[in-house]
Amino acid sequence: MQIDDVAPYLNAVREQRPLIHCITNDVTQAITANALLALGASPVMARDAAEVEEVVRRAAALVINLGTPTPARIDASVKAAEVARALGIPWVLDPVGVGASALRRDAAAALLTKGPAVIRGNAAEAACLSGQTTTVVPGVDAVGAVPTARDAAVDLAAVRDSVVAVTAARDCIADRTRALEIDNGVVMMTRVTGLGCCTTALVAAFLAVSEDAFGAAVAALTIMGIAGERAAGTARGPGSLEPALLDSLYDIGPADLVREARWHPLSTPAAEGVAL
Amino acid sequence: MQIDDVAPYLNAVREQRPLIHCITNDVTQAITANALLALGASPVMARDAAEVEEVVRRAAALVINLGTPTPARIDASVKAAEVARALGIPWVLDPVGVGASALRRDAAAALLTKGPAVIRGNAAEAACLSGQTTTVVPGVDAVGAVPTARDAAVDLAAVRDSVVAVTAARDCIADRTRALEIDNGVVMMTRVTGLGCCTTALVAAFLAVSEDAFGAAVAALTIMGIAGERAAGTARGPGSLEPALLDSLYDIGPADLVREARWHPLSTPAAEGVAL
Amino acid sequence: MQIDDVAPYLNAVREQRPLIHCITNDVTQAITANALLALGASPVMARDAAEVEEVVRRAAALVINLGTPTPARIDASVKAAEVARALGIPWVLDPVGVGASALRRDAAAALLTKGPAVIRGNAAEAACLSGQTTTVVPGVDAVGAVPTARDAAVDLAAVRDSVVAVTAARDCIADRTRALEIDNGVVMMTRVTGLGCCTTALVAAFLAVSEDAFGAAVAALTIMGIAGERAAGTARGPGSLEPALLDSLYDIGPADLVREARWHPLSTPAAEGVAL
Repeated sequence: MQIDDVAPYLNAVREQRPLIHCITNDVTQAITANALLALGASPVMARDAAEVEEVVRRAAALVINLGTPTPARIDASVKAAEVARALGIPWVLDPVGVGASALRRDAAAALLTKGPAVIRGNAAEAACLSGQTTTVVPGVDAVGAVPTARDAAVDLAAVRDSVVAVTAARDCIADRTRALEIDNGVVMMTRVTGLGCCTTALVAAFLAVSEDAFGAAVAALTIMGIAGERAAGTARGPGSLEPALLDSLYDIGPADLVREARWHPLSTPAAEGVAL
Repeated sequence: MQIDDVAPYLNAVREQRPLIHCITNDVTQAITANALLALGASPVMARDAAEVEEVVRRAAALVINLGTPTPARIDASVKAAEVARALGIPWVLDPVGVGASALRRDAAAALLTKGPAVIRGNAAEAACLSGQTTTVVPGVDAVGAVPTARDAAVDLAAVRDSVVAVTAARDCIADRTRALEIDNGVVMMTRVTGLGCCTTALVAAFLAVSEDAFGAAVAALTIMGIAGERAAGTARGPGSLEPALLDSLYDIGPADLVREARWHPLSTPAAEGVAL
Repeated sequence: MQIDDVAPYLNAVREQRPLIHCITNDVTQAITANALLALGASPVMARDAAEVEEVVRRAAALVINLGTPTPARIDASVKAAEVARALGIPWVLDPVGVGASALRRDAAAALLTKGPAVIRGNAAEAACLSGQTTTVVPGVDAVGAVPTARDAAVDLAAVRDSVVAVTAARDCIADRTRALEIDNGVVMMTRVTGLGCCTTALVAAFLAVSEDAFGAAVAALTIMGIAGERAAGTARGPGSLEPALLDSLYDIGPADLVREARWHPLSTPAAEGVAL
């Protein structure tokens, strides 16, 4: 996979304006909707069991994010995932803070059986989904997680039939046979709530225009990282980083991606000695 | 109606600081509260059936917004609307994404019987409330809706005893006998989530200081459009448009409205051949 | 107490990155999380009774905010406060709009029995918790409240075994024996929703690194006020004030606090004639 393969997804989103159904947490709904709008997609937020079936039927892709869970929202999420799977609508799981409670772990376990096209999280969350116990007790932020993004992504991709996208200083997207690392992004992004949730939503936007889930995840993480770098060029702190990042998502073009992407060569996990 | 008739509403809001009770969606509560504060009103968000009666009694106007609905919030909304009607407190309905689900359509139907002073939505939402079936399936954004704002507003005002304010590139405010179109605003506003919800909240703020619901809606849409234009003068994208727009709401004065409003002459719908 | 006593708390937060569990309202979750992240703490939002026990056990401090209450969230809040008290995890109560409904008053009464280390509110909210009836009917904003911050804080501290921090043009932090007033801050901060909630969350962040609840409250209010002043130097209105304030929280250092704090000398309430 080359950056030229995924850069065209950007214009595809802007031309098709896919409707992205987000069942997401209470904290980051606004920035998630704004990131999708800035990119060129069309968000719809709906989270009650009474309407998720109708809404997901009209969507081009679905996001399910486990932040601030309630039993009612988890039920609605499972229902939406089932409808999406039945209709062939791709969906992305964001297991926010999955290690924080049994409620989140059980919800993630139920959702994983519904075939997410992509799982997007931080390394601690991915390790938790792989069944690993970590010595760190993570909050919802990607701080202090023990495995590298690469190990976490490759391990989870090996145990789940899903593309896994782990964000960190060096991101990694993996499936059972491939792994790609991305160095775009700036550390100040960890000081803005919801940028991980936005990345997940961008994965969904690209899934709506591409059959290739691996490519969709790669496109989303690359664009988010470049948007963060561009924003950091003008931001004076995390407060001004947020609007600047949204401006960058709006402004960035395929040629910018080709020029600014900092990928490590695509590799096969086994070739580099990662245990499968 | 002339712009000089409604421009004074702005100072009235700033002097009276009316308490605006908002029962609104999960996505846009913060920007809605911030828009009311920037304008000079005082927001109170309360959405549980256990407290909406007490809160609405103290409010000068009420907003009911159907985004991210749940059965419990709809029940609270209907209760609040009943109390408002009984006490003569004006209220505004924002039928967000009403075409998206039966839950939203049924909620809108129940609420329409409670006498909203103004209905504020996009053209697709207004057409849905008029009982029209549209060939487009709208998300929550005002994209791809078939009827013009004018047709949608005039039609809905004809079937409902309410002022109808439809926002689009060319907005239209209508009641049974009049229609006014407004050209203020910029297309980039469609890339920021919640600006429609903010417009609805501004309608409520002006309802709190004016007996004339038509004038309140006209004032709100004019100010929002001008604030968007002023913000676009400095914004580099939708991310920076949002804070700049709030700054404009805070900064704008009655004389600015008079100078910058771009209204089409008030007309009678029938005179221009719109079927009533 | 001198500013030199509390300025070091700032670096302690940045070094320890304490996990702050927030059970807060629907409107201000994003800005609250962003304020904690900007300061250097790590927020976790969790509000369902099914998970609050597990989450609070891992937290260094807890925030309970009464905005947009529901019976379910109040139950979860009470449960979290009980666990926090049992484990010696300090917690802060923010009685948002407590005068607005019986639901909020009853919730506050239940929570006050669980031993908050600090109560942070505006003067009207503090007066309501003291059992005073005020002639003003407050919204959630600190507008028009009758008692001064000093009177409200000293009175509530006298009836409750808690530090009380009341924010206003002139803030006051009081316990049973001391009172300190702070003049930092700008009036435009009242036009941004959630800055009071952020102040409360900052109190929790400092409680996580200090045994001295009075000092933690003083540190939080001082920093928030200075951050607001610095932001006002570049902001063009409340919209741009918000990101600038977050930038300031990120940027500010202990030496800035020492230089810019505008405290009134610490006094004993009784010495100045406040009835205890």
